[in-house]
Amino acid sequence: MTLSTDPLTGMRQRYPEEMLVERHVCRVLTEAGALSGFREYDGPVLEPFSLFEAKSGGELVEKQSYFFTDRGGRKVVLRPELTPTLARMVAARGEMPMPIRWMSTPLCFRHERPQRARAREFLQFNLDILGADPPGAELEVFLVLDRIMRLLGVSPDKYRIRWSSRRFAASSLAALGVTDVAGAFGLLDKRDKIEPAEWLGLLEETLGCRKKAAAVERLCGVTDPEDPYLKELLGDDPALAEVAGFQRLLLGAGMPSAEFCPSIVRGLDYYTGIVFELTDTGGENRRAICGGGRYDNLVEAFQGRPVSGVGFGLGVLALTLFLETYGCLPDRLHRTPPASLYVVVFSPEELGPALRIGEGFRNLGVSASVDVTGRKVSRQMQHASRENYPWVLVVGPTEVSSGVLGLKNMRTGETVDGRLETLAALVRGKE
Amino acid sequence: MTLSTDPLTGMRQRYPEEMLVERHVCRVLTEAGALSGFREYDGPVLEPFSLFEAKSGGELVEKQSYFFTDRGGRKVVLRPELTPTLARMVAARGEMPMPIRWMSTPLCFRHERPQRARAREFLQFNLDILGADPPGAELEVFLVLDRIMRLLGVSPDKYRIRWSSRRFAASSLAALGVTDVAGAFGLLDKRDKIEPAEWLGLLEETLGCRKKAAAVERLCGVTDPEDPYLKELLGDDPALAEVAGFQRLLLGAGMPSAEFCPSIVRGLDYYTGIVFELTDTGGENRRAICGGGRYDNLVEAFQGRPVSGVGFGLGVLALTLFLETYGCLPDRLHRTPPASLYVVVFSPEELGPALRIGEGFRNLGVSASVDVTGRKVSRQMQHASRENYPWVLVVGPTEVSSGVLGLKNMRTGETVDGRLETLAALVRGKE
Repeated sequence: MTLSTDPLTGMRQRYPEEMLVERHVCRVLTEAGALSGFREYDGPVLEPFSLFEAKSGGELVEKQSYFFTDRGGRKVVLRPELTPTLARMVAARGEMPMPIRWMSTPLCFRHERPQRARAREFLQFNLDILGADPPGAELEVFLVLDRIMRLLGVSPDKYRIRWSSRRFAASSLAALGVTDVAGAFGLLDKRDKIEPAEWLGLLEETLGCRKKAAAVERLCGVTDPEDPYLKELLGDDPALAEVAGFQRLLLGAGMPSAEFCPSIVRGLDYYTGIVFELTDTGGENRRAICGGGRYDNLVEAFQGRPVSGVGFGLGVLALTLFLETYGCLPDRLHRTPPASLYVVVFSPEELGPALRIGEGFRNLGVSASVDVTGRKVSRQMQHASRENYPWVLVVGPTEVSSGVLGLKNMRTGETVDGRLETLAALVRGKE
Repeated sequence: MTLSTDPLTGMRQRYPEEMLVERHVCRVLTEAGALSGFREYDGPVLEPFSLFEAKSGGELVEKQSYFFTDRGGRKVVLRPELTPTLARMVAARGEMPMPIRWMSTPLCFRHERPQRARAREFLQFNLDILGADPPGAELEVFLVLDRIMRLLGVSPDKYRIRWSSRRFAASSLAALGVTDVAGAFGLLDKRDKIEPAEWLGLLEETLGCRKKAAAVERLCGVTDPEDPYLKELLGDDPALAEVAGFQRLLLGAGMPSAEFCPSIVRGLDYYTGIVFELTDTGGENRRAICGGGRYDNLVEAFQGRPVSGVGFGLGVLALTLFLETYGCLPDRLHRTPPASLYVVVFSPEELGPALRIGEGFRNLGVSASVDVTGRKVSRQMQHASRENYPWVLVVGPTEVSSGVLGLKNMRTGETVDGRLETLAALVRGKE
């Protein structure tokens, strides 16, 4: 039987050169989180189906999740997201010093149509603050997003963090006489994914009224929570005070990337307050790179005390494609050799000594690969050159008897003779 | 409905303090690999069932794997190991400069009875050299294992790498007149897991002959490939020359941890040559921490050119428990604070400025957490102390207007006044 050389559609497979890029992006994400006091955690990939049924809700669980019955007869699911697990872990601990700042980069699974920036098996960076009220926690989370972009070298005009509030959206829709709030939320969430005319048509259909649809469209066009139109619509509604207060805090913090946008509601059932997403300002990457918001009732289902939280999920693949679009992936990632030094072995007689010499360099912190193939010296040299090793040395009988090694700089072609310690220092100095 | 706060049995769940330990162990593993020129890769968790049916064989796939039929009607499996994926990835690339040195720390799944050092969802560090013949590649792999132990601070008497060869075992058993070679392999593999008397009984039963069982037992007692008994048994059999040659190379390299042990055969179908495992020399950790060997035909099933390889899988959990047993996990892991600095906010008026000050420290590389709860200063201080933050500063109206901050050293109780830049340098200098 011949096996296919392809993985299943949409699965995550990373060759070393791709892995370097993914590692780079993930490292910056956790670095940004760690600078703001976030600690890493992780939960199982395989979870009880009931956990997600209760928490994530709707389409995500029923239509997009990978679920099955395990050998013990339990209905289980490959997690489509991490937040329900976070809630359970916090509930299980009982009393914990609050607030909690946690982050994670879980592997998640969704059975969607594979497309750009969207795979069926994917890494999603998660960052949450639990046990702190708005708006300070929201701002801390926005600041981390901005820092991620800065650390990755993204210029501020290339992205924006658009935000609104679920509470604000619900109040506004109610004030406009909309009764099918769930239907309207679904359409608000789709606003960027559909052509404007088609969207308005769907909105009219859902609301059953052209006038209401026009009013909702007007609401979506507001860009400032202090807009008199909103005051007129909502009066003293605390939902308006919430978005206005957050806007003032953002202005005070100098966050030009943040933009109030009433059509942002996000798709997950558990959001209750401020919601947001990070998007490309250009046309290349249409889907949100990151989405998040505040949730209030996540821990309750475990009979824990209610804990309020705010957090986001960020697609590592979506972010990587965005970085590629704007040339923000460092060139060095593509030129990284497997190690600093390649040790060429003159003949099988020198294999043992060559391995000892390799170990000597490694002990001094110089990464080294020893050619253990027994092939001709010329072919070993060819391999070193093809794989971009910056330094090469040949171990033959002379080197073994004298202890003097010849280190070749593959960029300049120059060779320096010396003892192992001296050469190791030379390589380290040039790194 | 009340949801359970427990994950499914045997699943991997890591709170931040556990995650620090796991990250530490995984970091040393990849650091050791990188020093020897190994590059990271990864494949999907979800794979076609046929891939593992063809490659891993037997018990592992049929009895221990999590498989199901996905939404597209395909029989899929949560990978129980990584090697078949490695074979596919290499086959898919076609021509590649050989040898390949790759490593990975995949999440794998096996439906086993959970017990010490054995979970159903686990991280397994993998390291392989492909496209290089014995015995040099084998030695390189052994050297990495020794380095891992050294970097983790394990004293050499606490572990050993026991090795033999599948070819040698097959030749020896044939020479002893054993016909049920598969049955005998199964029992050799169980030798350390069963009481000696019971083991001998099972061996007699399997071989149907007391004399042959005694002969196999004697074979297992051999500790040196140069033992005259083996010469007598095998004569010029190349299988004997192979183990004797590898033993000489090991002696030349000065690897006291390596120990020839004819009962080592390992359980996976695909091994063909040298096989080995790393075990605790004490009694606390009975199961092998790491197992590996040489395989010759992995790529063939994809109609690729045959590629020979040698590698191992190492259980991150088993290694971690081993390190715990011998006190090799650094104390600092348990005392790590979420960040260096805790910023206490005097009143909600100072929230904005406090967040700006926090950002200022972060910009200078000092990790900082800002208290965004709005609670009393005394309760904020209490939190900082409980969470082991080494430095604390309070942002009140005076600090905001003057720009002079008071940094408190939580260990000494001493406070230093100064501007942000000065204090950031102070914190960084003490790290």
